Amino acid sequence: MACIVSYLPQSLREIVEPYIPLYEEHAPLIGIALASLIAVYVGYLFVQCQKEAAVAFNVPVPQEVRKSNTGKKWDEVSGQQKQVLEDQVRGKWNNDLIMSYCPADGRVLGNGIRPATVEDVDEAVRAAKTAQREWAKTTFAERRKVLRTLLKYVLEHQDDIVTACCLDSGKTKVDASFGEILVTAEKLKWTIDHGEKALLPSRRPTNFLMMYKKNIVTYEPLGVVSACVSWNYPFHNFIGPVISALFTGNGVVVKPSEQTAWCTAYFLDIVRGALSSCGYSRDLVHTIVCLPAVADKLTSHPDISHLTFIGSRPVAFKVCESAAKSLTPVCVELGGKDPAVILDDARTIRNLPTIASILMRGVFQSAGQNCIGVERIVALPGTYNKLIEMVTPRIQALRLGSVLLDTPFNDPTAITPDMGAMISPACFDKVESLISEAVKQGARLLAGGKRHEHPKYPQGHYFTPTLLVDVTRDMRIAQEELFAPIFLVMRAESVPDAIAIANSTTYALGASVFGHNSADVQACVSNIDAGMVSVNDFGAYYAVQLPFGGVKGSGYGRFAGNEGLQGLCNTKAVCVDRFPKLVGTAIPPRVDYPIQKREGSAGIKDGNAAWEMCKGVVETGYQLTIGGRVAGILRLLGNM
Amino acid sequence: MACIVSYLPQSLREIVEPYIPLYEEHAPLIGIALASLIAVYVGYLFVQCQKEAAVAFNVPVPQEVRKSNTGKKWDEVSGQQKQVLEDQVRGKWNNDLIMSYCPADGRVLGNGIRPATVEDVDEAVRAAKTAQREWAKTTFAERRKVLRTLLKYVLEHQDDIVTACCLDSGKTKVDASFGEILVTAEKLKWTIDHGEKALLPSRRPTNFLMMYKKNIVTYEPLGVVSACVSWNYPFHNFIGPVISALFTGNGVVVKPSEQTAWCTAYFLDIVRGALSSCGYSRDLVHTIVCLPAVADKLTSHPDISHLTFIGSRPVAFKVCESAAKSLTPVCVELGGKDPAVILDDARTIRNLPTIASILMRGVFQSAGQNCIGVERIVALPGTYNKLIEMVTPRIQALRLGSVLLDTPFNDPTAITPDMGAMISPACFDKVESLISEAVKQGARLLAGGKRHEHPKYPQGHYFTPTLLVDVTRDMRIAQEELFAPIFLVMRAESVPDAIAIANSTTYALGASVFGHNSADVQACVSNIDAGMVSVNDFGAYYAVQLPFGGVKGSGYGRFAGNEGLQGLCNTKAVCVDRFPKLVGTAIPPRVDYPIQKREGSAGIKDGNAAWEMCKGVVETGYQLTIGGRVAGILRLLGNM
Repeated sequence: MACIVSYLPQSLREIVEPYIPLYEEHAPLIGIALASLIAVYVGYLFVQCQKEAAVAFNVPVPQEVRKSNTGKKWDEVSGQQKQVLEDQVRGKWNNDLIMSYCPADGRVLGNGIRPATVEDVDEAVRAAKTAQREWAKTTFAERRKVLRTLLKYVLEHQDDIVTACCLDSGKTKVDASFGEILVTAEKLKWTIDHGEKALLPSRRPTNFLMMYKKNIVTYEPLGVVSACVSWNYPFHNFIGPVISALFTGNGVVVKPSEQTAWCTAYFLDIVRGALSSCGYSRDLVHTIVCLPAVADKLTSHPDISHLTFIGSRPVAFKVCESAAKSLTPVCVELGGKDPAVILDDARTIRNLPTIASILMRGVFQSAGQNCIGVERIVALPGTYNKLIEMVTPRIQALRLGSVLLDTPFNDPTAITPDMGAMISPACFDKVESLISEAVKQGARLLAGGKRHEHPKYPQGHYFTPTLLVDVTRDMRIAQEELFAPIFLVMRAESVPDAIAIANSTTYALGASVFGHNSADVQACVSNIDAGMVSVNDFGAYYAVQLPFGGVKGSGYGRFAGNEGLQGLCNTKAVCVDRFPKLVGTAIPPRVDYPIQKREGSAGIKDGNAAWEMCKGVVETGYQLTIGGRVAGILRLLGNM
Repeated sequence: MACIVSYLPQSLREIVEPYIPLYEEHAPLIGIALASLIAVYVGYLFVQCQKEAAVAFNVPVPQEVRKSNTGKKWDEVSGQQKQVLEDQVRGKWNNDLIMSYCPADGRVLGNGIRPATVEDVDEAVRAAKTAQREWAKTTFAERRKVLRTLLKYVLEHQDDIVTACCLDSGKTKVDASFGEILVTAEKLKWTIDHGEKALLPSRRPTNFLMMYKKNIVTYEPLGVVSACVSWNYPFHNFIGPVISALFTGNGVVVKPSEQTAWCTAYFLDIVRGALSSCGYSRDLVHTIVCLPAVADKLTSHPDISHLTFIGSRPVAFKVCESAAKSLTPVCVELGGKDPAVILDDARTIRNLPTIASILMRGVFQSAGQNCIGVERIVALPGTYNKLIEMVTPRIQALRLGSVLLDTPFNDPTAITPDMGAMISPACFDKVESLISEAVKQGARLLAGGKRHEHPKYPQGHYFTPTLLVDVTRDMRIAQEELFAPIFLVMRAESVPDAIAIANSTTYALGASVFGHNSADVQACVSNIDAGMVSVNDFGAYYAVQLPFGGVKGSGYGRFAGNEGLQGLCNTKAVCVDRFPKLVGTAIPPRVDYPIQKREGSAGIKDGNAAWEMCKGVVETGYQLTIGGRVAGILRLLGNM
């Protein structure tokens, strides 16, 4: 002890030294006391940790996910099932049966499911509502435990989840890793780490007249919320709204796309498994796979308090019209025509190979079926030709297929494809005709441009990776969302021109800016119409859980981030007395009902005094000058 | 100097003393330097102040506002005008002419106006859109100057504004002072004091994998927004959305109620006067007075970026259906059936006279035509009878009339009325029948209960202040919003029972709790379904600009407060590199397109390695244990 003290500076040593004999006398006692305190604290931390620790659980994995299982061919299913499959490919859905198949090779998944009925919707909402009453009382720590349990499962079952996604949507495993697993892990982690802070009560200012008040805003669960989500990320789009709904204390009914109904059943099992293994009701989360007529029942259900819609503009009109019937608030997440602006300062030109790689990921991720996919590359003169030169051979070299199908290790001819299939051939006619129309108007087609008959998988829905350059803003292909693997390049003459091109569509969801001249970059960030902007990156805002959503034709509302959680809550404003025992509100006698009844005074004069007093109150509280305030106080007092 | 130093403590004196001779040598120089610095700073403050200082301006005040002007009688207007007036009272509106009159005495206001056409809507939106482009570039200081200018006008013209409101809506001046002036002054002051803070960019957290990123959320103007507002507070409901729209950099088109079209013309002049006297375009603010068919054009206009609707549920269905056609987001502010829960602890019983006064203000303010008016008083056994005893004589004593009409100083018989007229007799049948139905079911009617033929003003629309007690939740009158001067009392047996009664309607807008047992009060605050709660007060949350809005049947979205301003903005999420010169995103070679092309390696193994690398990335970023993270990093590195 004394030797430690000798290292202290003179002044501190003088303070400490008198206590040394005392310490040395009781050293063992003090040691025990300190050790006990530390032990108690560590124990406390441990208990806290355990309270929120993840639980291990398992759910049955669909047999089609096993490598050995190659599913049934269309000729191996019943005649009715085959007919339903053929109709679905043509965009015609059967009211009694939904069949699932892999868009990459056509293998049949499962045995089909019966679409939900309006009664099923009522039952799901009712059950979720009942379960939510108890769930609303859980603490954030208890909800975090469920999310940690989910995260543990996801991390330990990446292969199974990704395989299910790939089978049902036709994407590659790399695409699924980025778009299904990484973003889900991030959403879980963000909610675990930052969710409670976003929902903590906040204090709000008061004013001069109400200085005795204290103002608080709190966030309370809404009840049962719903999400109607798209097929492009079947795992992430399903589980994202579930994470937010559960963390905010709500129950949730999700309508996944009928295109990816098969894998959603597994994902629902996962969520319910996490809930029940933590001791909560499986009824908190439901899915409704249904056709539009029944969806209307869900989107206009009076017991649904909030609706998140992720889909296309044409469907959004129907959903919002339907939600208007029950005055349900909707968070509308539509498509985009996201621009990536490539400036041409020296450093950006040097970085072009890196940028080209990022852009290719931005365009071809999930075969372009990505709501924040890069739909337009707007390059300045100094980068325009260089970029095209750089990407042309790379895009031409991209190979189509499915990681799942092309990787039996015992097949020496197998290749790993870069890009998977598309969900259906529905858009092929339109995309092909937009491309040929653009070419007629002067665009140059340097790669792809049409659908692809895969030699190995004739039933797969493939579109050739496409490079289309010299596109101008008046071409239809520069205006409409493609949701397809098209690397579309437009030339801008200057930064303001690039901004004008970026803003020339009805959409405004995401945007990227690549550049290193900070004034130019800032001009783009500030002036491009978008809900989200990444600088020198693609979609990075989504990987850090910033609020997600667009403006203009891309919808409104935000999910993810603080805004996403708060949007699923009742924002409750509470105004209380700061010192309830000392001061509270009382109606001044002059305006107390009945106003005119004052002893010894004619009614008419009292009325005028009441009005003058009110004026005095306003002036006391809000006059712009000190003199004005004093006059107000005098008027107030003179007419009390 | 030396004498000041002598007061310092020894240690400080030692530090300062060596400098004294230096100071004394250069005292004049130092004095001049200090004085100059102070002068520059004061000058800077002055210039800053002046930059935002209010400008005085004037606009013509409608002649009907002058005391000497008593307006025309219905017999003094043209036959067509008289017909239009008579039709309007019966709820039938003319497509070519809207007439205005005072609901308190029937006097005709103005000469009628032509309702707007769809072309007028287009023109208003177009003009606002053009003006907004410049306005979006203004600073918050410049916008505050406009708001200060408005506040100055409002404070200096309280009599004119209030008189116009009273004439067009039939309310008393005291009601108008509270509901039109005080709350508007507060909204202006709050926005001036706290608006910029609500719209400052905020930083958001990043994560482990993206630790080189910096995340910012900013708020940008949307463009042109719209508000369709109700007649109950013609000045405040009009100017409230204008304040928020202007401060957020938007243009705005307001659709006031056709019931209060006359005074709105004056209020529009005020806002435009403030704008033009500060050097900005009058076109930033427009009003559209129209009938429903034309309103649909506004609420579905593609150039309207946001809609605030303040009105009734039946109209909200139409508005939301219309807004769905252009996917315009709507903030829906409907009515309520606001409960005031009166607990029965000893202190609350002692305070009952004060509470009775507050409740009477809450019920009879604006003749009950108040969206956050107290519609249900839910009292516990210990306060129930006492409260009724206390208010019965006071409610019976309330007098009807209009302050404007009853206060010619030269009339010795004049009285000051407590309560004004209602906007129209449209609800009288319904309210009377709900009352008599309740009485049949066991409620006791202790005052009023029916419409009132005012002896002096046969054309006024008056309803007698009503006291109805022993109301139970199964009675229709306990379920439907009345918007009428009904003091409706319900008995609760316990705190949970009071909460259950409070939550027994489809509405959930505001609520009050009166009590001093903090556990009981907190139970009410937390468990009553409402968007806003005042404790021991009525509507106090509105007087401090807390976010305003409801849940359940009362709508969704929030105006006022931070949420109100942010709701009129594009919430833009921006993700940038924290050290752009040092580190940025690059696609790892293993997943760089084309993925399979790696020298000296079979494609298939590369594909598998790419997937393994992705798994490693996820584990590195999100594994729950340190061991898991390390394993993830190893997997990542092993497959790079």
